Amino acid sequence: MPLSELLLIEKIRALARQTSGRHRGAKDALGAIRIGIGDDCAVLAGSKTHDLLVTTDLCIQDVHFRLDWHPAESVGHRCLTRGLSDIAAMGGEPTAAFLSLSMPAHLPQKWVDGFFKGFQRLAKRFGVALAGGDIATSPQGISADIVVLGRVPKGKAILRSGARPGDLIYVTGTLGRSTEALAGFKLGQRCSPSVTSTHYFPQPRLKAGQWLQHQGAATAMIDISDGLSTDMAHICTESRVSALLLREAIPFDRSRKRKFEERCEEDTRRYAFALHGGEDYELLFTAPRRKKIPHTLGGTRITNIGEITAPKKGAAPITIVHGDGRVEPLDMRGWEHFSSSAMEDK
Amino acid sequence: MPLSELLLIEKIRALARQTSGRHRGAKDALGAIRIGIGDDCAVLAGSKTHDLLVTTDLCIQDVHFRLDWHPAESVGHRCLTRGLSDIAAMGGEPTAAFLSLSMPAHLPQKWVDGFFKGFQRLAKRFGVALAGGDIATSPQGISADIVVLGRVPKGKAILRSGARPGDLIYVTGTLGRSTEALAGFKLGQRCSPSVTSTHYFPQPRLKAGQWLQHQGAATAMIDISDGLSTDMAHICTESRVSALLLREAIPFDRSRKRKFEERCEEDTRRYAFALHGGEDYELLFTAPRRKKIPHTLGGTRITNIGEITAPKKGAAPITIVHGDGRVEPLDMRGWEHFSSSAMEDK
Repeated sequence: MPLSELLLIEKIRALARQTSGRHRGAKDALGAIRIGIGDDCAVLAGSKTHDLLVTTDLCIQDVHFRLDWHPAESVGHRCLTRGLSDIAAMGGEPTAAFLSLSMPAHLPQKWVDGFFKGFQRLAKRFGVALAGGDIATSPQGISADIVVLGRVPKGKAILRSGARPGDLIYVTGTLGRSTEALAGFKLGQRCSPSVTSTHYFPQPRLKAGQWLQHQGAATAMIDISDGLSTDMAHICTESRVSALLLREAIPFDRSRKRKFEERCEEDTRRYAFALHGGEDYELLFTAPRRKKIPHTLGGTRITNIGEITAPKKGAAPITIVHGDGRVEPLDMRGWEHFSSSAMEDK
Repeated sequence: MPLSELLLIEKIRALARQTSGRHRGAKDALGAIRIGIGDDCAVLAGSKTHDLLVTTDLCIQDVHFRLDWHPAESVGHRCLTRGLSDIAAMGGEPTAAFLSLSMPAHLPQKWVDGFFKGFQRLAKRFGVALAGGDIATSPQGISADIVVLGRVPKGKAILRSGARPGDLIYVTGTLGRSTEALAGFKLGQRCSPSVTSTHYFPQPRLKAGQWLQHQGAATAMIDISDGLSTDMAHICTESRVSALLLREAIPFDRSRKRKFEERCEEDTRRYAFALHGGEDYELLFTAPRRKKIPHTLGGTRITNIGEITAPKKGAAPITIVHGDGRVEPLDMRGWEHFSSSAMEDK
């Protein structure tokens, strides 16, 4: 995300710390904050057996979607996916969704129907009920804020902060397709159906996240919404560790072009999408080397892409080992370059 | 609210019903929905002793506030008040807030600081911690979505649906000041400090709501965000009852003008604001006649403004008795006329 957003979040974190200490009542009272700003979800005191998870995510026209690129059903689906994926990243189970939607008065009813169709289809699939929200007329553009509540066994939420040196790093699925689709839209090029459908209808990895939580297998987890490089950095920062990634292991669609040069060019592009492109909504997690992680979870491939190392003072937190043995620090372009400007016409 | 919004909400309710029945797991499991769309808050299964309350509210530039009318601190305060007032209307205690904020890149830092200053001052007063949210750059205008979580003893949330014929109707505080301030801004007229400060910094009536819940005194409750006429109608609809209001009892600032004609004119205007103007964030509640309701609650005056009657087929749900004995059905102009167009220059 752009620097100004990071600074603003830091400022809000500081403000939040000022109030959280003043909260009245026992720390086990329903709704008391266990973990606030800084993870995929906030963790709040829930029942005797479970903690409560809460996440909120914005979907804004011309920032997160464009009417000329995204069908309404995709916008509704992607909106809910953002919330469900955050619950998945804590190893939780979603229970209820709240949607605040502001729309211009002239928006066709057909668009609204399509939005809810996409939203509801995904909600039904995961047994999540729409429990409330708000609606307003917007002077400009569509804006949706999705809130998802979930639960996780008490004290068992998988945080960003638990990675330890020696842990292996894994990702679910294939990376970079969502950004490849965006790049295609921008250039007016057609993408393969698998690429387009991954972008339009990304699947939150709830089953994989829940398996890891049930087994106590993962030490840290995050969903890849801002890009592998950015989200890996979040785990490194919160866990105070470094990461070593193997370029050859990163799962992206290898080029099938015949000519060597074209193949290299396409692979280089797709590798950049996989590394820095956001909105794949795959899970990135770490697990102790001795833990046996299956090759697939919930029908999704699991790939070991590197390992956690001890942090070195002054060194970059993420290092990449290339196929030819070259080792280089990872350039942190991430979200800013690949996503925040992706919707613009420039 | 405008008819199209009501229709859309009905549609969403229908959609929500489709999914809620499919929710997996026990109905007492943390996060399971007890009461969904249709009250001030959703009520979810919480701990052994408490239910969880969740409310979300939008605050959109040029719909809910204007940069040339509202100081940034007021926008932050009013944003959180919308959420806290919904918790108050259920008789609950707020625990955590989540804020999703989208802002144009060129918005001065001073505005953002002012917004958070107003927000945090109110949050601290009620011991509510900011536990998360989202931030995005908006292509146009500022939009904030506030989510507040709260708790209420299990099964004790005060709903809109519990009013019974014979119950008396009460309101907290003074009505109409917020809309009088808006009308003043629109005409470029200065209002009295009490009117302006009620509009800029409305106080959520948490203490009054909690007292009513502790005492089991109220049968139904709602906060007056859309106007007395609209919110009274919500109680009538949800409780399947009618309401008889006494014009002379409605608490608004009586005119102090010396000339009879000017006094009448100002009173007529203020009566309309009190009846149909929104954003007072006072509480409207019903209680059995035998229950002793104090004259003040949490420092706020409580006024009996009428009583609940049995519904008559074909008759208007709300009837007004005037000082001269005239009885007439209430014209449902409410929110649509007084608020939705209030921010426009026309």
